[in-house]
Amino acid sequence: MWCPKPLCPSLSNCLQQRERWSPWGGGGEGHPICSHSNPLLSLPLPPDCCSPVNFLEAEGHQGLVAAVFGILFSSICVLVLDTDPLPFIASSSPRSRGREVPSLYWKIMALLYYPAFYYPLIACATIRHRAGYFVGCLLSWCHCVVHIWQKVDCPQSPKIYRYYSLLSYVPIILCLVVLSIWYPVLLVRSFTQEKPAAREVMHCSFLLDLCYVYSKSQRKYQFPPPLMLVPLLCNSYVPVIGFQVPLKLVLSVTTAVIAVYQVALLLLVVFIPNIQIVRAGMTKEITVLLVQFGVVPSENPAVPVCSLTVCYVCSLVLSCLLTFSMLMRSLVMHRANLKALYRGDVLDVFYRARMLCPSQQALVCWMSFASFQTAFACLGLLTQQVIFFVCTVGFTFLVVIPLQSGTNMHLFKILENMWPFWLTLVLAVVVQNLLAHFHFLEKHHLQKELTNRRALCIMTYLLFPINVLVGVLAGVWRMVISALYNAVHFCQLDISLLNRGVEAFDPGYRTYCHYLKIEVSQSHPVMKAFCFLLLQLSGPEGQTGLKPTDVEEGIQLMQPVKGLLKASKSKQTRARWGLAYTLLNNPSLLACRKTVLSDPTANGTQSCPAKP
Amino acid sequence: MWCPKPLCPSLSNCLQQRERWSPWGGGGEGHPICSHSNPLLSLPLPPDCCSPVNFLEAEGHQGLVAAVFGILFSSICVLVLDTDPLPFIASSSPRSRGREVPSLYWKIMALLYYPAFYYPLIACATIRHRAGYFVGCLLSWCHCVVHIWQKVDCPQSPKIYRYYSLLSYVPIILCLVVLSIWYPVLLVRSFTQEKPAAREVMHCSFLLDLCYVYSKSQRKYQFPPPLMLVPLLCNSYVPVIGFQVPLKLVLSVTTAVIAVYQVALLLLVVFIPNIQIVRAGMTKEITVLLVQFGVVPSENPAVPVCSLTVCYVCSLVLSCLLTFSMLMRSLVMHRANLKALYRGDVLDVFYRARMLCPSQQALVCWMSFASFQTAFACLGLLTQQVIFFVCTVGFTFLVVIPLQSGTNMHLFKILENMWPFWLTLVLAVVVQNLLAHFHFLEKHHLQKELTNRRALCIMTYLLFPINVLVGVLAGVWRMVISALYNAVHFCQLDISLLNRGVEAFDPGYRTYCHYLKIEVSQSHPVMKAFCFLLLQLSGPEGQTGLKPTDVEEGIQLMQPVKGLLKASKSKQTRARWGLAYTLLNNPSLLACRKTVLSDPTANGTQSCPAKP
Repeated sequence: MWCPKPLCPSLSNCLQQRERWSPWGGGGEGHPICSHSNPLLSLPLPPDCCSPVNFLEAEGHQGLVAAVFGILFSSICVLVLDTDPLPFIASSSPRSRGREVPSLYWKIMALLYYPAFYYPLIACATIRHRAGYFVGCLLSWCHCVVHIWQKVDCPQSPKIYRYYSLLSYVPIILCLVVLSIWYPVLLVRSFTQEKPAAREVMHCSFLLDLCYVYSKSQRKYQFPPPLMLVPLLCNSYVPVIGFQVPLKLVLSVTTAVIAVYQVALLLLVVFIPNIQIVRAGMTKEITVLLVQFGVVPSENPAVPVCSLTVCYVCSLVLSCLLTFSMLMRSLVMHRANLKALYRGDVLDVFYRARMLCPSQQALVCWMSFASFQTAFACLGLLTQQVIFFVCTVGFTFLVVIPLQSGTNMHLFKILENMWPFWLTLVLAVVVQNLLAHFHFLEKHHLQKELTNRRALCIMTYLLFPINVLVGVLAGVWRMVISALYNAVHFCQLDISLLNRGVEAFDPGYRTYCHYLKIEVSQSHPVMKAFCFLLLQLSGPEGQTGLKPTDVEEGIQLMQPVKGLLKASKSKQTRARWGLAYTLLNNPSLLACRKTVLSDPTANGTQSCPAKP
Repeated sequence: MWCPKPLCPSLSNCLQQRERWSPWGGGGEGHPICSHSNPLLSLPLPPDCCSPVNFLEAEGHQGLVAAVFGILFSSICVLVLDTDPLPFIASSSPRSRGREVPSLYWKIMALLYYPAFYYPLIACATIRHRAGYFVGCLLSWCHCVVHIWQKVDCPQSPKIYRYYSLLSYVPIILCLVVLSIWYPVLLVRSFTQEKPAAREVMHCSFLLDLCYVYSKSQRKYQFPPPLMLVPLLCNSYVPVIGFQVPLKLVLSVTTAVIAVYQVALLLLVVFIPNIQIVRAGMTKEITVLLVQFGVVPSENPAVPVCSLTVCYVCSLVLSCLLTFSMLMRSLVMHRANLKALYRGDVLDVFYRARMLCPSQQALVCWMSFASFQTAFACLGLLTQQVIFFVCTVGFTFLVVIPLQSGTNMHLFKILENMWPFWLTLVLAVVVQNLLAHFHFLEKHHLQKELTNRRALCIMTYLLFPINVLVGVLAGVWRMVISALYNAVHFCQLDISLLNRGVEAFDPGYRTYCHYLKIEVSQSHPVMKAFCFLLLQLSGPEGQTGLKPTDVEEGIQLMQPVKGLLKASKSKQTRARWGLAYTLLNNPSLLACRKTVLSDPTANGTQSCPAKP
């Protein structure tokens, strides 16, 4: 349900401010606190948040970082087929032409060069300073103008298909346009922002997260319901108030969507020239030969080529839509899993007890999570395209064309000749169901009981041969459904393609589980809010403007919202009850709480809410 | 562990007697109680156990029933490719020759004819009377002699391969030989058996079953350990004292093994003539052409044909072994699942709460379980053969032959040219692992903590492009491992090939779950023992020879064995404690117990140990 009225008066401002701050549609937007003079205020961002490097830590500029990763990934896609992997080394030089190995070396170099080349585009925003924003503006404008100029100047290329180069650069140019708008906005805002409001926004952000994680009431969507009818019906992802998608997830979904675009584009441009060659090569002699063999209907010999094209495009569109919707459902699963882990329900997510602590393997998986998601989206799309193309071609040539033209009815003839066989199978299944319902079961004290056991034995024995044939059909169905399921869900890392006992052998699922571990252990919302409130208190009180009674507001929010509104008399007593209740329900937090309290110097590093 | 000394003195006799009674190696053998004059003694076999129809209910002659099902299934396998589906209608009659539809009709007729034709072979044993055994002897000898005579008279046939017909009849003849020996043994035993011993065996059988289900100690195997080293190492099925495989499972495994034999035979005889034709057709011109294209090494042009044969046979042997071992592992799973369900652990088996009551769907699935297992074994073997053949051919022609002959080294050249690429990937993975271990993690109060977050961010960003390529390899691995896993485990009905949430859409797994429901609800060992003891008591005491204190011996056995040996003083008190303990741990039994006690007329039908 959409929540037009915020939860409580104190949160009302937060919501309005958060929406005002967020050009990303309320998703995640930076809280420009770092420019404040008090360094303690910058927590739970670590004290080094204003350096240009920790762009994956700071909870700001998600869209900006995602755009840079999009540019980076698109550059690599272009690179794979490019003969000039690096811009300053032309392939037309006689030394490298025709030699594969040097080109491979340059490509490997390019894999390291491009990240470094686009790095300043992120760094300018991570510095969180006016000068950075200004340089960012200049850089993004330069990149954007250069790319657009290049493509306008020379839209065609001889590679594969004349417009392939132009189309493959579209994501890069779009991402650069996003950057070119984002940086000026940041620059202008850095002159006009009000600092106390920023602090307030930060505070409320944590409270909202806590409220989302611990409330059992219905979700409050960020947009009014009519806008989200379609995504909700498709079980797709819809932003919810109080939950920020972690940056790594935003990155992985962005690059995965770009990957889908690039692979689909490649599949399309590889197909078009080939089908044109086939069409051109369909001379009269070959057509006559095909007609004689019954492959092509004699009235319209161009039908098969047209059908092939239609099948190819349809299956490509279907694959893209399916992959995209699976990515969106994946986001829903991520949110549910993160919420469950924040609440301590490890068994609901991993189905067995696990320590939520960083480990070497988990860290490596966390580093490669976005890359794996991207690669899996590519491979999933390819697999789906192959499967759907074969299926649609089979359907077209065995069902549609014969029905239209009336020739080449092999399949129908086989089916027609075998009708007694199909009838027998259907009859056997129907007879067994009817017998089971009316003859072998009798209702007895509200539950069914077996009866007529003799007849059951006889029927089981007599129908055994026919049931074997039914079993063959069921087996074929099992094969088809498992292959289709695995192909469609290939791009989802949050489900394992293997059976229960051996889930961990699936590299995608293993990566996802380890990623979740790191994500939860490093950014638990209770931990964030706790650190923030602790530091607010330890700072000079006049400056922060927070009284000790306000501190436990976050804990109050863990109760259902209705109870909260009534409980305005003895706030502190109830807050302590709430604290006790929370700790009872989440015993894993106890250790962390004590550690943090007894060791206030470890302010940046959050300890691990482990659950043995 | 094998148990050379039985559990307690009273069970010692039981074990010896059970072993004496069982020609099936202790698996399941009939207790010839039905010939006793007191009809109550025949329980928990229903009062109509001596009719010729309920062969699937009575717990006897498992091997005999399995042999008849084997004959039936083999007849159907032979039927599929036969032009004379029915013995008394020759295909040489001019009416049906060349017309497909009548032949199909006859085949469908044969699907119903053969079960009826072989039915007397089961019925003679189910009657449990000397006359029946005598007729069974005559029948099985007749069938056996006719089949052997037929094959000795005319061992070759023009169909597919000259010995195919002979080889495909081997399982039928073997099963008939088993019957021809079994019936005379039954007949002789019916003259020599001692009746009181039979009753004792029956009693002990139930106690052993109870002991197995409720004891938490290690398993007692039926054979000394040296005999079972190989199956135990392969995690295969090994018979255990106290657990009788249900008849339906014995049937399904028997027919599945025969199915594996028949499909493997068919695959082999289809391949041999074709490879002979290829070998004969490899004239000099074709060989020269192939050598020119580099497909065939010039030194020995016959190598590819030989390699193909070797690959085919190897993959066939591998597929058969894998399918067989999966069937054996499946039996282990069946036993574990049945034991868990008998103890009431529904969640351990189905992973969600389920009612263990008969329903229409469950009954239909129970009827078709053995057929599905058989059909899935066929399809699984076919799939594995295709996959393994392609893999071994690829391996042979891309790796083995080039390494031997030194020509056609395409794969090695590609790998050699791409070594910088592979090296980069390996280096990237190693560097990430080393950095994660030594630089990004520090040990802090027994658990690891993240550190150097700036470097972590930078490395994640810089290695993103290379990780995408690593991800592509991981994705290929994910595809390969899920396809292989599904192909290898295809014949196992006890695991679902789909993901957790959608397991029920797998037709095989659904059938298995419903089968388990019926099996557990209709043959719970506590229920059996309870009915048996109750009827022993209600009969004349002198005749049964059981005192009321003996009755609760079964309940005592539910305690661990060690505790049992000490508790010899106040048997009855402890037995009641044991009863209370059992009912506490299995509250689902409460309802059943009361129902049975209050309604002693419903002696045959057991109520359902439902768990809401």
